[in-house]
Amino acid sequence: MTTATDLHYLTLHELSERIRAKEVSPVEATEATLERIERLNPKLNAYITVMADQALADARAAEQEIASGRYRGPLHGVPVGVKDLCATKGVRTTAGSKILGGWVPDANAPVVQKLRAAGAVIAGKLNLHEYAFGTTGVNPHFGACHNPWDTERITGGSSSGSGSAVAAGLCYAAIGSDTGGSIRIPSSLCGIAGIKPTYGRVSLRDVVPLASSLDHLGPMARTARDCALVLSAIAGYDEEDAASVDAPVEDWAARLDGGLRGVRVGVGGYALEDATPEVAQAFQSAVGVIERLGAATKPVDLSVLGTYFYVGGVVLLSEGAAYHKDNVEQRPQDYGADVLMRLRSGLDQKAADYVRALQFVRGLRRTCDELLLSDVDLLVMPTTIMPAPRIDSVASDDPTLGLSRLTLPFDVTGQPAISVPCGFTAGGLPIGLMLVGRRFDEATVLRAAHAFEQAAGFSGRRPPVD
Amino acid sequence: MTTATDLHYLTLHELSERIRAKEVSPVEATEATLERIERLNPKLNAYITVMADQALADARAAEQEIASGRYRGPLHGVPVGVKDLCATKGVRTTAGSKILGGWVPDANAPVVQKLRAAGAVIAGKLNLHEYAFGTTGVNPHFGACHNPWDTERITGGSSSGSGSAVAAGLCYAAIGSDTGGSIRIPSSLCGIAGIKPTYGRVSLRDVVPLASSLDHLGPMARTARDCALVLSAIAGYDEEDAASVDAPVEDWAARLDGGLRGVRVGVGGYALEDATPEVAQAFQSAVGVIERLGAATKPVDLSVLGTYFYVGGVVLLSEGAAYHKDNVEQRPQDYGADVLMRLRSGLDQKAADYVRALQFVRGLRRTCDELLLSDVDLLVMPTTIMPAPRIDSVASDDPTLGLSRLTLPFDVTGQPAISVPCGFTAGGLPIGLMLVGRRFDEATVLRAAHAFEQAAGFSGRRPPVD
Repeated sequence: MTTATDLHYLTLHELSERIRAKEVSPVEATEATLERIERLNPKLNAYITVMADQALADARAAEQEIASGRYRGPLHGVPVGVKDLCATKGVRTTAGSKILGGWVPDANAPVVQKLRAAGAVIAGKLNLHEYAFGTTGVNPHFGACHNPWDTERITGGSSSGSGSAVAAGLCYAAIGSDTGGSIRIPSSLCGIAGIKPTYGRVSLRDVVPLASSLDHLGPMARTARDCALVLSAIAGYDEEDAASVDAPVEDWAARLDGGLRGVRVGVGGYALEDATPEVAQAFQSAVGVIERLGAATKPVDLSVLGTYFYVGGVVLLSEGAAYHKDNVEQRPQDYGADVLMRLRSGLDQKAADYVRALQFVRGLRRTCDELLLSDVDLLVMPTTIMPAPRIDSVASDDPTLGLSRLTLPFDVTGQPAISVPCGFTAGGLPIGLMLVGRRFDEATVLRAAHAFEQAAGFSGRRPPVD
Repeated sequence: MTTATDLHYLTLHELSERIRAKEVSPVEATEATLERIERLNPKLNAYITVMADQALADARAAEQEIASGRYRGPLHGVPVGVKDLCATKGVRTTAGSKILGGWVPDANAPVVQKLRAAGAVIAGKLNLHEYAFGTTGVNPHFGACHNPWDTERITGGSSSGSGSAVAAGLCYAAIGSDTGGSIRIPSSLCGIAGIKPTYGRVSLRDVVPLASSLDHLGPMARTARDCALVLSAIAGYDEEDAASVDAPVEDWAARLDGGLRGVRVGVGGYALEDATPEVAQAFQSAVGVIERLGAATKPVDLSVLGTYFYVGGVVLLSEGAAYHKDNVEQRPQDYGADVLMRLRSGLDQKAADYVRALQFVRGLRRTCDELLLSDVDLLVMPTTIMPAPRIDSVASDDPTLGLSRLTLPFDVTGQPAISVPCGFTAGGLPIGLMLVGRRFDEATVLRAAHAFEQAAGFSGRRPPVD
């Protein structure tokens, strides 16, 4: 017998198969999701805005459409959440800020349009680190987002609500954004899958920017397959987005089989000396799984990531400060302390250093595959060097530099990178493995992540929130 | 009877017709040019490096090729000069600097490759403002470049040698670069034609940059027709140049007829109150010529150019400083005083201001035609608000802001802009008229400039240097 909780913990793919087979209706799935949000959101604080009425109306429309034989595809009738920096028509879009707290856009961002065109039911707008400019998800205006594996711990950020909601069954997938790691960090800390696709894959238009040279949108879900299904729906060229790249959108979920046999995997040891022992151990075990799957592993020197991290920091601080300059000068009291500190540091950045950093990034985008993936097909490393810190620790001991140490470099290179669960600490906190591929080769990244998930068995576990 | 001086003062087009008809040989033209350089360069200081041996060898090769029936086109066998920031294989490329003074590139820049592929004979490398970062052409390392109309006056810059050499018959055309006006200012002050094409038209690869978001290469010659002939040879997409745009290259010289009848011309009065009376008078007369040619003129408000100038200054200073930062810190004594002052000002620029300025430029590139040319086909205004200042005045009274006031805005917009002579002062100094067109519509700009030259009669006059 399928309980309500079982329904919540179906993967998106599983739910979608049942919807297509008319075993579960979109309204049933949506009502169950809204009930679960009502019950658990007070504990998790994953949603800033729940779009109950619109979601139910959309679910009914999906149900009728499917009943009349017009099935749109795997997102049809599936409840999903959207990070609250993507514009939603008629629904306030806060960017986790006080300053934008009253903004009600009059159009959907293209990423939301694409979700809706695929038939997805938008359940609501998800909490985030203020303006996405941090990695803790402790938001001074909308409250901290709580990790379903231990509600006294952060989810990681900035896509904190996306991580929490997906992990706890408050939606089947969510849109996150990643400028320094903001999709992969909460995916790692919440025990789910999240892919930052290649830079330019998903339109950034009508999404509140953090640093447009590094911003990426992408899916967070419970499996690599679910990420693939969502990515195929939201990817695509947008001529009105200067960052958008006209690359073919593939049916990535159809290309997940094939495993890892013969795939050449570079194993990074960079920063491992600073990882917690449990993270280091889980990573070594993950490499063992990858080897048993038939991949040819070899150690690679990733010390260059330190340079990429530094360069990415200059770009992130400078572009972030440019966007916020007027508000920092006119209403600094409306920012949280950590974000204001970062913005002020950004306002101190020199133009010449930014110009050089941006030139470095642009040059690297052309050469990153040759520099990092010349004789391997994938890189693997831990996503984060630590599991989720306690919420009460982050004000005095900001974990941002540590959490983003391995993720930010790939916002700089623009290569696709996924985080999937690769273990748990003794205390029950998830640990993430990151797989990085060549630009526009999401196919290999997703296929490898899928094979790893199947073999490792850490995906789809249920956090202790019920 | 054609005297040697008559030969020098043929237009490129006229020389090329005679070469094709085998009335003048490439060797004859090249020897005559080299002799004239030898005689007049000590007075003008237009060339930093004369490439006599290679030029003669190339001229002989061109002569043989033409004799055997393989005529390449209108540049074949024609002596031209190249601003000394374009890399030339085996020939030192100084950028007018002490720092690069010993650099001997091992490859030609694409712009030089294209000239050579068209059969042009490169006579030498032309003087410039140090690193192209100024408008006077008073170079502390290679000496001031002198204006052929009054050798006690500047040529304008930064393409100072290009202006002087073309005006005085030391080559038939020259390559200049324009970041804030450096093609159009010396063209205006030396009484020749010079076009800054649309941003992205001519590859900037292997050219010492000033500010790559604003840098343009283009031809300087004695007529709009000659500019058209050279532009068709050097334009074209270069996938290795990030700024390059893949736009069709046209045979612009074949499209010069048609005049100005029915063309809608916006007449700018911006900054005219700060122009010298003779410049203002020459401009008003030029507008009269344009009206008599049948154009429909109307006044346009160009006060927005002040904003573009400011934004362009932030980008120019920031990008210039980024390129020079290490040298400014390590060997400031190797820069001239004015350039060092600009670089230090650039190093003070804030990243956030630059990010915003660059966003402004990028947005403007998309909208400039609508903003400035929505209901006219061309804009006309003076190129510079003053004729050439005296060399001995510029150290204490730098004319850069005044000289670039009307030119820099169009490096920001990226629209094509040509300067052609529109009068002379009582003291015999040339005055320039600028015509600005829509992006990638060099055809209309060149056609209008050609019609104006024919009607106005100020082009092709000989400066008093013989």
